[in-house]
Amino acid sequence: MATRIQAGAVVTMDDNRRICAPGAVVYDASGILYVGDPNGYEGPLDQDLVIPEGVVLPGLLNGHNHAAMSMMRGMADDSPFFEWLTQHVWPVESRMTPEDIRIGTLLACAEMIRSGTVGYADMYFEVDQSAEAVEQAGLRAWISRGLVGLEDPDAKKLEDSLAFAERWRGRGDGRIVPMLGPHAPYTCPPEYLEKVARAARDHDLGIHIHLSESQDEMRQMAERYQKTPIQLAYDAGVFESRTLIAHGLYIEETDLPYLEGMVGGVVTCPVSNAKLGNGILPYHMLKEAGIAIGLGTDGPTSTNTLDMFLELKAMAWLQKTREGRPEGFHAVDALWAGTRGTAAVLGHAGGQLAVGAPADLIVVNGRAAHMTPEWDVLANLVYSAIGSDVRYSVVNGRMILQEGIITTFDEAAVIEEARERAKRLMEG
Amino acid sequence: MATRIQAGAVVTMDDNRRICAPGAVVYDASGILYVGDPNGYEGPLDQDLVIPEGVVLPGLLNGHNHAAMSMMRGMADDSPFFEWLTQHVWPVESRMTPEDIRIGTLLACAEMIRSGTVGYADMYFEVDQSAEAVEQAGLRAWISRGLVGLEDPDAKKLEDSLAFAERWRGRGDGRIVPMLGPHAPYTCPPEYLEKVARAARDHDLGIHIHLSESQDEMRQMAERYQKTPIQLAYDAGVFESRTLIAHGLYIEETDLPYLEGMVGGVVTCPVSNAKLGNGILPYHMLKEAGIAIGLGTDGPTSTNTLDMFLELKAMAWLQKTREGRPEGFHAVDALWAGTRGTAAVLGHAGGQLAVGAPADLIVVNGRAAHMTPEWDVLANLVYSAIGSDVRYSVVNGRMILQEGIITTFDEAAVIEEARERAKRLMEG
Repeated sequence: MATRIQAGAVVTMDDNRRICAPGAVVYDASGILYVGDPNGYEGPLDQDLVIPEGVVLPGLLNGHNHAAMSMMRGMADDSPFFEWLTQHVWPVESRMTPEDIRIGTLLACAEMIRSGTVGYADMYFEVDQSAEAVEQAGLRAWISRGLVGLEDPDAKKLEDSLAFAERWRGRGDGRIVPMLGPHAPYTCPPEYLEKVARAARDHDLGIHIHLSESQDEMRQMAERYQKTPIQLAYDAGVFESRTLIAHGLYIEETDLPYLEGMVGGVVTCPVSNAKLGNGILPYHMLKEAGIAIGLGTDGPTSTNTLDMFLELKAMAWLQKTREGRPEGFHAVDALWAGTRGTAAVLGHAGGQLAVGAPADLIVVNGRAAHMTPEWDVLANLVYSAIGSDVRYSVVNGRMILQEGIITTFDEAAVIEEARERAKRLMEG
Repeated sequence: MATRIQAGAVVTMDDNRRICAPGAVVYDASGILYVGDPNGYEGPLDQDLVIPEGVVLPGLLNGHNHAAMSMMRGMADDSPFFEWLTQHVWPVESRMTPEDIRIGTLLACAEMIRSGTVGYADMYFEVDQSAEAVEQAGLRAWISRGLVGLEDPDAKKLEDSLAFAERWRGRGDGRIVPMLGPHAPYTCPPEYLEKVARAARDHDLGIHIHLSESQDEMRQMAERYQKTPIQLAYDAGVFESRTLIAHGLYIEETDLPYLEGMVGGVVTCPVSNAKLGNGILPYHMLKEAGIAIGLGTDGPTSTNTLDMFLELKAMAWLQKTREGRPEGFHAVDALWAGTRGTAAVLGHAGGQLAVGAPADLIVVNGRAAHMTPEWDVLANLVYSAIGSDVRYSVVNGRMILQEGIITTFDEAAVIEEARERAKRLMEG
């Protein structure tokens, strides 16, 4: 079933960053069939949507999330990090049931669908429930169980992760991709990281890991192992498989040789890094070293929202602050990170509107007051648009947001259920 | 005509930062009559709104704007500052007509009303047209004509400003407050600043001025006058009247004696400062010195949107980045800046829900996915809410946004007209 969307502008994010204004995209479940002039497609059509006020762009890809932490959104914000983690997050997590995780994931999916995300890389626990929620919601997800080596002496959780991967690989029409998720070098000793790295190679799985996120981590790893987190991961063989490095904001020049030729890349989470006071990614150093840079939100307990349009802004604002000049970072670089960058890290063919790419796209209302006038559609998308401007979202050719309504599950019921479940979690 | 709004929560931002959940506010055109328990008001009511999903808070006050620059939103973003100003902004401004300014101001008002702003301090030209637009839109505005001393040898524009103040003082039921707007020390030589300062004293007008915004400005003033911008303004007598210092992010410890006991304060514009690569306000230093700190957007050509909910986030994110720890700045401090802080700088009784305060308030939808669950209503407002969550806005007891619809002018017609006018400006 081929659908054409004709719109005021089509921002392709293809290799040439082509923009067609006006433009059209034609797609079916197999992928994108056409991108170009509104009238240039001559094949058969089952559906023809004309949205003159719309701007079509590839759906955003959130490269780092702990989606079900939506259940703790806003809890103990502004507390010192260690107090927040040990006195708030961990005690509540210990009370969370598998059904809390499923509902929390659906809540996060609602927010992501509404704000233009078509896929995300997740690390959390009760991954079967997360995967079920994603399968229903219609998004893509790269799902890993967070592995804390210190709590997994006999590698039972690693085994569970491999079994999860067996069960879910390719499900949801290929929308669900299992990965392995060793949490971080300060929770996974080198021998454990080696085990995970070996399992990743043996089972052809990618790795999702937090590395070089904070100065504390850098100090701890230097004291404990006389290595940087990057060097530690390299030595454990992590980078022999595709690796998604979450954060990476303290990667140093001396780390670059360990990352040379790596498959995968770094996913930056500017809001989380700012809100936790961690700092600003050395974007230009990584880019010049040829490392793919994706964009993500981190979990909603630290970032609060999963609106990737806020991340686009935060990335640009913070990089310009770091550079000390407005021309130090461009709008298109932020949008690239949130589409092609994350796709490159994940080895995914999406993040662009090009013939043969997956049919994952969103339509933003380009005629809101804050999107008027139209000097530069890219600047409007990055610096002005917010999640609620997204009116349509298509994943794998299926429309999961239609005129602002989620079509795959009952959003209001999920919000109500999440409220009730959170009340129980608050009571302790 | 007294109206009661009953809501899930009322965030007062009064001196005790009281939150009533659930709560109610009763108001009429004279001001706020009651704040407290939903059923605690026993006077007569003409209207009773029950919004269980709503969060009521004081309307946000945007302390620094050039509203009609909405007509150039997104133009030449990411260019070097001087190139942007001289090759893009100034040539287009020279082609802008008074009617362009009126429509641009209405476009900005549409955006501000939709995103929860109830009043703003503006500096631009064609101020009669701005004031007309504001009078119609129903917002409050502190309006000043931007005075460039270098282009005003015989102080004709200063005279015009005084005549404007005569014409508009107190109009729109007191919603419109004229100020004097000497642009900045690098465009207004000391003798001119002295003239403006004298006129402000003689005519009992406040002053709105850019000071200590960039390193370039600091360097220039040091070279030209061997003074900081603050010292220069002090010496010219500026601080003898109420002064709104826009930006102030390079205020130094040695400047503090000049600001001691000043009436007015600093309005920080975190998004503009970040996007132009200027840096981050020394918030704690100013706060400890007892200086009122308000929040503003700057003009939409530099900031792109006028959504104060983005400024709340940006302020918190950037201050935490500066401090290097999550507890270095709290959500309530951002909301204080955007309500009470701006009000204190302007000498305005609003920015809080308290009996006798002006009836300026907004109602946010607290049940969107990204506002769920409710661990902390303040954290949700600052870190999660976005402008489009605002459903109602009341200014001076008049409802100017009702269930998401602007009641005071035809928003769609203004957007269409702004698009057409901008096309002409683009053509040159």
